[in-house]
Amino acid sequence: MSDRIQVTVWNEFRHEKDSKAVKELYPNGIHAVIAESLAAGDDMAVWTATLDEPEHGLGEKVLDSTDVLIWWGQIAHDEVSDDVVLRVRKRVLSGMGLIVLHSGHFSKIFKSLMGTNCSLKWREAAEKERLWNIQPSHPITDGIGEYIELPNTEMYGERFDIPTPDELIFISWFEGGEVFRSGCTWQRGHGRVFYFRPGHETYPIFYNEQIMRVIANAVRWACPRVVLEDKCPQVKPIEELSPKKVSFGKAGRLQGNQ
Amino acid sequence: MSDRIQVTVWNEFRHEKDSKAVKELYPNGIHAVIAESLAAGDDMAVWTATLDEPEHGLGEKVLDSTDVLIWWGQIAHDEVSDDVVLRVRKRVLSGMGLIVLHSGHFSKIFKSLMGTNCSLKWREAAEKERLWNIQPSHPITDGIGEYIELPNTEMYGERFDIPTPDELIFISWFEGGEVFRSGCTWQRGHGRVFYFRPGHETYPIFYNEQIMRVIANAVRWACPRVVLEDKCPQVKPIEELSPKKVSFGKAGRLQGNQ
Amino acid sequence: MSDRIQVTVWNEFRHEKDSKAVKELYPNGIHAVIAESLAAGDDMAVWTATLDEPEHGLGEKVLDSTDVLIWWGQIAHDEVSDDVVLRVRKRVLSGMGLIVLHSGHFSKIFKSLMGTNCSLKWREAAEKERLWNIQPSHPITDGIGEYIELPNTEMYGERFDIPTPDELIFISWFEGGEVFRSGCTWQRGHGRVFYFRPGHETYPIFYNEQIMRVIANAVRWACPRVVLEDKCPQVKPIEELSPKKVSFGKAGRLQGNQ
Amino acid sequence: MSDRIQVTVWNEFRHEKDSKAVKELYPNGIHAVIAESLAAGDDMAVWTATLDEPEHGLGEKVLDSTDVLIWWGQIAHDEVSDDVVLRVRKRVLSGMGLIVLHSGHFSKIFKSLMGTNCSLKWREAAEKERLWNIQPSHPITDGIGEYIELPNTEMYGERFDIPTPDELIFISWFEGGEVFRSGCTWQRGHGRVFYFRPGHETYPIFYNEQIMRVIANAVRWACPRVVLEDKCPQVKPIEELSPKKVSFGKAGRLQGNQ
Repeated sequence: MSDRIQVTVWNEFRHEKDSKAVKELYPNGIHAVIAESLAAGDDMAVWTATLDEPEHGLGEKVLDSTDVLIWWGQIAHDEVSDDVVLRVRKRVLSGMGLIVLHSGHFSKIFKSLMGTNCSLKWREAAEKERLWNIQPSHPITDGIGEYIELPNTEMYGERFDIPTPDELIFISWFEGGEVFRSGCTWQRGHGRVFYFRPGHETYPIFYNEQIMRVIANAVRWACPRVVLEDKCPQVKPIEELSPKKVSFGKAGRLQGNQ
Repeated sequence: MSDRIQVTVWNEFRHEKDSKAVKELYPNGIHAVIAESLAAGDDMAVWTATLDEPEHGLGEKVLDSTDVLIWWGQIAHDEVSDDVVLRVRKRVLSGMGLIVLHSGHFSKIFKSLMGTNCSLKWREAAEKERLWNIQPSHPITDGIGEYIELPNTEMYGERFDIPTPDELIFISWFEGGEVFRSGCTWQRGHGRVFYFRPGHETYPIFYNEQIMRVIANAVRWACPRVVLEDKCPQVKPIEELSPKKVSFGKAGRLQGNQ
Repeated sequence: MSDRIQVTVWNEFRHEKDSKAVKELYPNGIHAVIAESLAAGDDMAVWTATLDEPEHGLGEKVLDSTDVLIWWGQIAHDEVSDDVVLRVRKRVLSGMGLIVLHSGHFSKIFKSLMGTNCSLKWREAAEKERLWNIQPSHPITDGIGEYIELPNTEMYGERFDIPTPDELIFISWFEGGEVFRSGCTWQRGHGRVFYFRPGHETYPIFYNEQIMRVIANAVRWACPRVVLEDKCPQVKPIEELSPKKVSFGKAGRLQGNQ
Repeated sequence: MSDRIQVTVWNEFRHEKDSKAVKELYPNGIHAVIAESLAAGDDMAVWTATLDEPEHGLGEKVLDSTDVLIWWGQIAHDEVSDDVVLRVRKRVLSGMGLIVLHSGHFSKIFKSLMGTNCSLKWREAAEKERLWNIQPSHPITDGIGEYIELPNTEMYGERFDIPTPDELIFISWFEGGEVFRSGCTWQRGHGRVFYFRPGHETYPIFYNEQIMRVIANAVRWACPRVVLEDKCPQVKPIEELSPKKVSFGKAGRLQGNQ
């Protein structure tokens, strides 16, 4: 068990309570469906956490034992406490993987790791989407063919205000005329981040086998190689230095001449 | 005048008041020396701003008329108000250029745009530094030869915790055995960001002609092409969509079958 | 005149002779239409060259005085001599800009600079294309809005086998369901390379003002900052080295102990 | 056995015959030492090939069964046949990993995949090198600490004329005052390429455990995820297209009006 990847699926979990339609689709929440799918394999131990739990279910202990965190949120980004965001961010920079789904593009954690607005265009018109696999040799697209087709989705369109991804994995085509960088990776500190566009709450996206395959692949890809604490150490020279004519230092003890 | 690049040089301006040695070197502050040097050409109109002014000298009006902001800070990063940081960040993402010098690596604004810890190693030993010019055809290295040599500097060493730069311009060699990515560019939103390592307050770095040439080049390079507001608009389809079998929407009106 | 950008527009110039339809559209060749458009401004001096001229019109002298070379070819890539390709490649690596249009993706010069197959999917169905502007602050998209729409084009679809572009400028949407990275930049040596997808010979693409604006912008962007010869020099140490216990050298004079 | 990574170590194998000093150090050739080291683990099946064998030991069959190819060459790059280079290149683009060592920077295969001159500065002065680990969370640096120190090496210095690496893994510091991007990765087609600087023939570099650890890590990292043939297929539209007013086609059958 200890050699399984420890996955925490975080969900805002509001739509599923407030909307009859969403409740029908995801009676126990989006997180439950994702978690069940990931746990079906034998290489992941999967937990869930939601906004309304204490510390949003993301206490120090939970994060310390999480290898990869999956994030879904949409209407309550502002209710996520800044302290929890800082904690998650610190843990990502130390090595934890982070997978941000769909409307998570506007989450505090994603924006704080990207440094940009993460804005985009959008439209709800049940239109067809085709996610083209641009990197068929990338571990995240293992087992995925040329593209994934979703018959009905919310549209997200460019310009998506993100830093240039380290790797662009999927580009989406939408029936209504737009395109989108739908699968993107970035390294932040020692952690790997994957943004994956699909996942609107009123379409059965997380029941789609190919979508769940991508997410499972991404979990394996994002699993930490190392966990390293951040520091900014003062160090000694490794080489012997030549004699100096100047003094120096934080206190500004400039005495010689340069 | 209006077609000059509008440059604001921001300085924490504390060392120059507190330390005799720094005061001797930069009697009117680091910002004054940088501003004077940049203003010597005829293509920039240069202003200064410092921490202890109201709004740190970075009110809405100042930022709105700034094309490129230069940032130097070291011991008082925490005193910079979060509101001002947000304002600067918003303006960078809209297109303003930002040049971050030396210990500005730990400034709130730089960390918020990078999304990482921006930590590094350091040592004060007046050692020799050589900044190798890795991109001789880049506008930022215009007029700079193979390398810039500084006889005495504070050392900054890898690992520097930054996202992979869009462009790596300089790599530093230090007498004591370390290396550092000393000149790096990133695009963030519509703005261009340049980090440039040199600039310790107790060495006469900003009197070095090559260093000032790099900074002037960087100002010209970072000058905005566009200034665009951020938005996340709901849009209409450009193509006529095929008839849909499902309903949809924010309120989750899922009625049909997919 | 000498401070104008010296542009050479190279065209295979075969379709325009062999096909009545293409001849009607481009009676003097695609190169003539591109050249005339670029020369209409006052910052470029524009020349043309074609496959059937001696040395394909790309003698040493022509290349030495060319700042930016534009390349269009489709059915006769194999007829371009390897020597001329090497000469163009050498000149790009020394600083000359290169703009590769449409079916130039399969030209020897483009493939030799990319190092990949540069393969793609294609279809001729007069379908609608929309080139989304992903980088509105890039000099290449100056004056271009959110997208360029072409009512009828040949389709090029992913996966496009190229190295990850330094900058992804345009992503195309096609009526038939595909996407394509239609505007990409790479630095190669000291030269800048821009690939731009539009330009099929049977549609009036090069009469489109927005398309020609992008090409003119790209010429200005690709104009060399420096022209540097390639070398692999043996150099002397800049620092004095510590005494060595080993001998060394090309001839393998290993005498001491490490 | 069949699930082991199939590694072929290619060596020019000339110095070891011509130079007494090199022969002493690598009596059976550099390839033999590398192969033995890699084969010591239980996850690789390792073979060797050299320049003077028929087809340089790199026949179709050998390449087809090779997952990762390691390349060492220095004085006989020109003797490698263009046909074999094309064969290796095709196989890399289809998915085979390639690890290029030291003076292999000037090999035909590396230059053809990079598209640049791959030139650099160099000096033989038995000087100290320190390879700083810039990416401690990358699989290639697994088990490597902050840096690798080599007491005596040939120096390679910037500017190294390569395309910007996808990932910069190591930066070298040299006693004599230079720096170098010593560990770099690129994706080319479906294959992964790693350049690793150390490896001069007159120093016992390939007996260094850390160096061999990096190479073994790189083999695991470069092992293909997929093997895909290259093609440029004509495809049918996936969507039904709107009626067209124009004809089109390779033969230029332009009949309608746009």
